[in-house]
Amino acid sequence: MIVNMKRAASEEEINHVIERIKECGFQAHVVRGEERTIIGAVGSSGRRSEIEALRAAPGVAEVIQISHPFKLVSRQLRKEHTVVNVGNKKIGDGSLVIIAGPCSVESREPYDFQGLGVEALRFLEEASKETGLPIVTEVMSEADVEVVSEYAHMLQVGARNMQNFSLLRKLATVKKPILLKRGPSATVKEWLLAAEYLLAGGNHDVVLCERGIKTFETATRNTLDLAAVALVKELSHLPVLADPSHGTGLRSLIVPMSKAAAAVGADGLIVEVHPCPERALSDGPQSLDLPGFETLMKELGREPVRDVKAA
Amino acid sequence: MIVNMKRAASEEEINHVIERIKECGFQAHVVRGEERTIIGAVGSSGRRSEIEALRAAPGVAEVIQISHPFKLVSRQLRKEHTVVNVGNKKIGDGSLVIIAGPCSVESREPYDFQGLGVEALRFLEEASKETGLPIVTEVMSEADVEVVSEYAHMLQVGARNMQNFSLLRKLATVKKPILLKRGPSATVKEWLLAAEYLLAGGNHDVVLCERGIKTFETATRNTLDLAAVALVKELSHLPVLADPSHGTGLRSLIVPMSKAAAAVGADGLIVEVHPCPERALSDGPQSLDLPGFETLMKELGREPVRDVKAA
Amino acid sequence: MIVNMKRAASEEEINHVIERIKECGFQAHVVRGEERTIIGAVGSSGRRSEIEALRAAPGVAEVIQISHPFKLVSRQLRKEHTVVNVGNKKIGDGSLVIIAGPCSVESREPYDFQGLGVEALRFLEEASKETGLPIVTEVMSEADVEVVSEYAHMLQVGARNMQNFSLLRKLATVKKPILLKRGPSATVKEWLLAAEYLLAGGNHDVVLCERGIKTFETATRNTLDLAAVALVKELSHLPVLADPSHGTGLRSLIVPMSKAAAAVGADGLIVEVHPCPERALSDGPQSLDLPGFETLMKELGREPVRDVKAA
Amino acid sequence: MIVNMKRAASEEEINHVIERIKECGFQAHVVRGEERTIIGAVGSSGRRSEIEALRAAPGVAEVIQISHPFKLVSRQLRKEHTVVNVGNKKIGDGSLVIIAGPCSVESREPYDFQGLGVEALRFLEEASKETGLPIVTEVMSEADVEVVSEYAHMLQVGARNMQNFSLLRKLATVKKPILLKRGPSATVKEWLLAAEYLLAGGNHDVVLCERGIKTFETATRNTLDLAAVALVKELSHLPVLADPSHGTGLRSLIVPMSKAAAAVGADGLIVEVHPCPERALSDGPQSLDLPGFETLMKELGREPVRDVKAA
Repeated sequence: MIVNMKRAASEEEINHVIERIKECGFQAHVVRGEERTIIGAVGSSGRRSEIEALRAAPGVAEVIQISHPFKLVSRQLRKEHTVVNVGNKKIGDGSLVIIAGPCSVESREPYDFQGLGVEALRFLEEASKETGLPIVTEVMSEADVEVVSEYAHMLQVGARNMQNFSLLRKLATVKKPILLKRGPSATVKEWLLAAEYLLAGGNHDVVLCERGIKTFETATRNTLDLAAVALVKELSHLPVLADPSHGTGLRSLIVPMSKAAAAVGADGLIVEVHPCPERALSDGPQSLDLPGFETLMKELGREPVRDVKAA
Repeated sequence: MIVNMKRAASEEEINHVIERIKECGFQAHVVRGEERTIIGAVGSSGRRSEIEALRAAPGVAEVIQISHPFKLVSRQLRKEHTVVNVGNKKIGDGSLVIIAGPCSVESREPYDFQGLGVEALRFLEEASKETGLPIVTEVMSEADVEVVSEYAHMLQVGARNMQNFSLLRKLATVKKPILLKRGPSATVKEWLLAAEYLLAGGNHDVVLCERGIKTFETATRNTLDLAAVALVKELSHLPVLADPSHGTGLRSLIVPMSKAAAAVGADGLIVEVHPCPERALSDGPQSLDLPGFETLMKELGREPVRDVKAA
Repeated sequence: MIVNMKRAASEEEINHVIERIKECGFQAHVVRGEERTIIGAVGSSGRRSEIEALRAAPGVAEVIQISHPFKLVSRQLRKEHTVVNVGNKKIGDGSLVIIAGPCSVESREPYDFQGLGVEALRFLEEASKETGLPIVTEVMSEADVEVVSEYAHMLQVGARNMQNFSLLRKLATVKKPILLKRGPSATVKEWLLAAEYLLAGGNHDVVLCERGIKTFETATRNTLDLAAVALVKELSHLPVLADPSHGTGLRSLIVPMSKAAAAVGADGLIVEVHPCPERALSDGPQSLDLPGFETLMKELGREPVRDVKAA
Repeated sequence: MIVNMKRAASEEEINHVIERIKECGFQAHVVRGEERTIIGAVGSSGRRSEIEALRAAPGVAEVIQISHPFKLVSRQLRKEHTVVNVGNKKIGDGSLVIIAGPCSVESREPYDFQGLGVEALRFLEEASKETGLPIVTEVMSEADVEVVSEYAHMLQVGARNMQNFSLLRKLATVKKPILLKRGPSATVKEWLLAAEYLLAGGNHDVVLCERGIKTFETATRNTLDLAAVALVKELSHLPVLADPSHGTGLRSLIVPMSKAAAAVGADGLIVEVHPCPERALSDGPQSLDLPGFETLMKELGREPVRDVKAA
């Protein structure tokens, strides 16, 4: 890390920063320019967060991080791709996985999830047995982690919970893979830090999912950031999916954006599909109907494969 | 609500929408223009979410809401300001409340909140008894709601949890006031809907807090949206605070933005204060030290009052 | 258009709006709901901007547009794709056009464009004659329109000038095609309105180019909005390019995002290429070197074709 | 500046960067950490843009600027506030200046500015003579600079032209003060760089104006960034105004946001005022009528003073 001193910083302030850097377990390298002084904190075993706090010390203009704050998810640590097993399917092995289904199991009452929730999970389990397909479902509360992980093959963390660290801490201890959606206002760095949290807690089976970020554009529900998919593939060994349904909010854009996501290197897609979108309890306008899903599969050059998803 | 049909919509598609509107409990008013047809769904007792789902029906261009989707928080429902009692203090009575303190109780270990959490709460309780000041503290997990509500006078929902509906549902049943921070990517409408959720669940003692939204500007940590404070005061009867510490991330902007928040009509401020910001475990650069807090109080034309906060 | 009255609107206010709608050349359709009244302004020959101004009238909550404000660029007006001839090349005929080159002609002095500008244009003309490739170059000022249109085969409007209506007005009268880049904070609607302005002024040879929008994400220079490419192809008959160099700012993302742009349906790409990016006067980090460009062409399944661009 | 090398950078790549730094007129200070090497470029007379271009060199992770790129507008260069004389008024002397009026002179035809433009300017001149008030008016095109500067006391650069460098270059040579509005997607740094451009070209009479930035929030037309006003007052010696009309787009927010702008330290306000907002040719919904303007003046503790503005 680099501590960039203000131009007007006094010798005393500079010396104070140097001492604090040493106290925190780093070496201090001072570079005195004509206009200002910068101080490098060198070493890998010091207490980084205390150096960051020096931003609040007198005479300090800013503290600049020069390493990525994430380690375990980083491709520097692990060169090969992580492949995550979800039931009898693999994500991250170079093929394009399609996860499809309605966003909610539709008979549950929104205010009474606990009860009907389990019923819904049983329905999904049944569907899974019938079709041989694994199930992905969202877990919205710590209290539900246990029961959902009994039934589902992969647990989804919704975009709004990406930084719900209580939930992440619990999911880090579960023996099921986690699908971590990017928060609508999360930077790539914050997203990877949330994944780091899961790995640091012991769960290495993490699949990322880009689902659009919040921008000023209102013609689409969100702005699907496909460059983030390519960037995460470069920075991390974890598999990355794209969700063109939430990412655009418009049915007519699902096929072109699915093809773009495949081209950019995504490991798979999550697509909303509903037998009758206009009667869907949620997200109808961004759902494909069954013929639409057939078209998508054809455009992707695929035989229709049915995976079951409910979130 | 208004259903705006596509220009190319067929008579059959128009009639289908009219029938669905009636099925959902509304009257249908059809306005046929030269270029396109719009259909108003009139009535107050129909099933609105089913009309929204018509966006997915064939021939429909868009469904436009013409009423606000929130009711209980709305000033239309309740003309007078809501005043929330927090211990022996009032928020929303026309005075400017100052909530100040460090962001974390500093001896707790980040990965072991449960244990030291209670200890921290006891420490806060002690501080409260000594000073006579009420306590506000954040609750980050449903599992903590019960214990935190035993000790704190007001429970804070952090910005990242604003749409954690499991947590909101639990907090709606608690007999303590809730401080609901705006999410970094939440619109004013989404923020008021989250508050509506608390009121609908039975807790009417809700205080809102603007703490900055995520924008492209990086010179400040967030963009403190003071127009949102004024707008919420117009739309809702609930009190609204502003948080210039998180809202700007820069200590030097706390005083001017606090004065601006007071001028725009905020009911109070939340300000990070720490005896030694450069050693704060979090948020030092956006914390005032004690002389800085004295200056703030003076600039606001106030006698220094100490309220205690930890989140 | 629909005028949505406030709940508290008086009969007098409602009647005033009805009269104004008629004065402006529309029919007024009144729909009285239980809670509020809405008034549709029906007709295609009235003065729309005066209806919009009714937002400022007493008792009015909002004025809602239900038609797109653009006509000439709209696919409703013209079903077939527009094909634009640029020298001996076609854009919009279903093939993928690659425009490549450095962002600036490098010997010009930034503060003395007029003089060396013409020299640069002559250099480009020479290059064009030698290679048989057409030239695209940016025009940054009305004063330059005439001279640039003598030399270039297509004139580019840079992102920062997308809403420079003085410049657009002049370009509308030129007999050369225009490449209209999307502004970094322009919605799709605003972008199409800027194109509409060119067509309304008499220039129908307009090519659009998505080059990234400004969002909170800082890992990439901009957020390349590929859904906007697909959406514009749906809404308009004009061809659309994508610029993965400016769109991401990162050389390593140019190849994957180019492939994604091709997959989403873009009519072509604009890519920065420089023989020695680290010595480029501008935009080096987002430029391919020549071997990188070879790789791009190979990944797109193409024989390397050299088009020359300077902007 | 600091060049942050990739972890995997070779000795050869490091040496190449060191040599280039020296070639560009800086001293190179190398700090070798356990994980990576950083190289400081020290000196004030080197060619900075060439160091920035090293981002494109092999082995380089990033180039970090540690000084602000602007000098002339900086408070480091000039400690005292700049006071700008606009006719017989002063901006920046500690008082709050109010600029008010309609956004357009209303009889001009939008497509024929040149002719009626001069007529409009004559009308403004007449109004100025009658009232003794100076005139501010927008100049949208280089071609208009000369004629507008004959009539107006201050020339406004609209938000969409903030980075129209051809226009700025011309305005830098004019002997009239410039009002530089912040672009809707411009960072504070980009805004100050645009002002730097005017000062570097010879015009030191620059007044800045915050008018809202584009964010995801749609309840207001823009997000008025009052923290930017406070920050610019800290970073620069130039005066700063706020525009609550464009900044919010909502008449009811003009008074509270004006008071907030005054409290945060703005040197003045620009407010849309129109005798009959519902018939205004533009921006009616964000305009005060005359009684509304009286209220504003009263709320600001002022005698009504009429300044005339047209933009």
